[in-house]
Amino acid sequence: MTTFTYTREIRIAWAHCDPAGIVFNPRFFEFFDTNSWGLFEAALGINQHDFAKTYGIVGIALVDARGNFMKPIAFGDTVEIVSRVTEFRRSSFDVEHKIMKGGELMVEGQESRVWAVPRKDDPDKITTAPIPPEVIAKFG
Amino acid sequence: MTTFTYTREIRIAWAHCDPAGIVFNPRFFEFFDTNSWGLFEAALGINQHDFAKTYGIVGIALVDARGNFMKPIAFGDTVEIVSRVTEFRRSSFDVEHKIMKGGELMVEGQESRVWAVPRKDDPDKITTAPIPPEVIAKFG
Amino acid sequence: MTTFTYTREIRIAWAHCDPAGIVFNPRFFEFFDTNSWGLFEAALGINQHDFAKTYGIVGIALVDARGNFMKPIAFGDTVEIVSRVTEFRRSSFDVEHKIMKGGELMVEGQESRVWAVPRKDDPDKITTAPIPPEVIAKFG
Amino acid sequence: MTTFTYTREIRIAWAHCDPAGIVFNPRFFEFFDTNSWGLFEAALGINQHDFAKTYGIVGIALVDARGNFMKPIAFGDTVEIVSRVTEFRRSSFDVEHKIMKGGELMVEGQESRVWAVPRKDDPDKITTAPIPPEVIAKFG
Repeated sequence: MTTFTYTREIRIAWAHCDPAGIVFNPRFFEFFDTNSWGLFEAALGINQHDFAKTYGIVGIALVDARGNFMKPIAFGDTVEIVSRVTEFRRSSFDVEHKIMKGGELMVEGQESRVWAVPRKDDPDKITTAPIPPEVIAKFG
Repeated sequence: MTTFTYTREIRIAWAHCDPAGIVFNPRFFEFFDTNSWGLFEAALGINQHDFAKTYGIVGIALVDARGNFMKPIAFGDTVEIVSRVTEFRRSSFDVEHKIMKGGELMVEGQESRVWAVPRKDDPDKITTAPIPPEVIAKFG
Repeated sequence: MTTFTYTREIRIAWAHCDPAGIVFNPRFFEFFDTNSWGLFEAALGINQHDFAKTYGIVGIALVDARGNFMKPIAFGDTVEIVSRVTEFRRSSFDVEHKIMKGGELMVEGQESRVWAVPRKDDPDKITTAPIPPEVIAKFG
Repeated sequence: MTTFTYTREIRIAWAHCDPAGIVFNPRFFEFFDTNSWGLFEAALGINQHDFAKTYGIVGIALVDARGNFMKPIAFGDTVEIVSRVTEFRRSSFDVEHKIMKGGELMVEGQESRVWAVPRKDDPDKITTAPIPPEVIAKFG
């Protein structure tokens, strides 16, 4: 469990909501994705646009995602998404996202991602590479 | 495990893809959602728009979703999404989605949903209700 | 031309971008929509969620939208969306949106919307109603 | 006005709809975008994924889009989107989209797009190029 956390506040817009007037669930996975990029940007101190060229990676590719929707979040609500890396492995890592409203946990998410690089024999394809120790060190 | 399956073919559009040229993961959860509605429509023989008034429900509300992204799916690909209910419980059920490309499993999804009805004391809020046996019977 | 303007800053996320690495155009119309709600909220001093019950409306329904994409906006960019009502008519109005990056105009949008209320003879359908003068007055 | 038309049927899903139970307007621009790619694919007889390498282009980049939302389209509706190029100019062209429900025109869209190629001095940037006459010829 790393100690570095990243928090982003979101205002729930008409655009996010479904005919039941609550956030349409794929939006939560979009919120998670944006927070994972923001978490790395905040920890590394590098614009997320520049991860690719700084580290020679294609990205932090998602291999598994899960959401647990405990309470509905509605149009007009303001929530906080609190994210952190729960585990770094050799070339993969897990991110946890908690969506809070007024201190109450509404939605919980987990993502597993890999440090994705172009394949040497076919740069259009991707493979995984070891996460640099200096990247991991930034997360505390 | 029920036996009724619903299959939908999707052409992967520019609209579905991210800067890596592959399907942006929240789109998969959108695909799963649309297939769950389609699965019920096919099994029940009722337009999905009319589930609410036919059964007095608000909807088939999602409480948990998971995706496992085994292989990337790219712009221009044609895939099939094969869905079925893996388990019916009293007022909840699980749906499994398999995204196949040329016979190969690319992405796997699981959803847990509840039979959601308006609360009697506060119709703006929802609670769960038992799934009618005649609904379950339609899935074989 | 009203004088009240509403500005929202947006960080362009991976989620917003297409395989060309720039904002996928329908996202701009989502940005416009969210800004129109925000503009009314800021002018009226009422949570956007409560417009419906405060004014007896279904919403500020869109009837026409246009976007002019002058320069591409890319992943990682920070932009400002500046919005204002350019004209109020009896039961409709126009909103202008300008997306600025570092002081430069990148995208321009126009929306025409109507003050939408439930039809008396069939509340599931909508019709337009005169915009209350006190609403218009708030925009200066 | 070219004569080649491309028609795609869409089932309106829960995923497409907003809290008013009708299609959220940015989705229409997504529908238009997907139809423009489909129109070119149908006319040219080339997988849309391969336009880039076949013609040395980055894409058919959008510079202007407009939607006129005449009648609402709701969850569960089936519509047809009929698209064609209304004008080819030297390096740009206009596409018209008509969304029909049961023979009735519900939504109308126009897009202006350019034939976009990488800039010779800076391949990360794009410029426009003349549309090959053999491309235009395919549209009748």
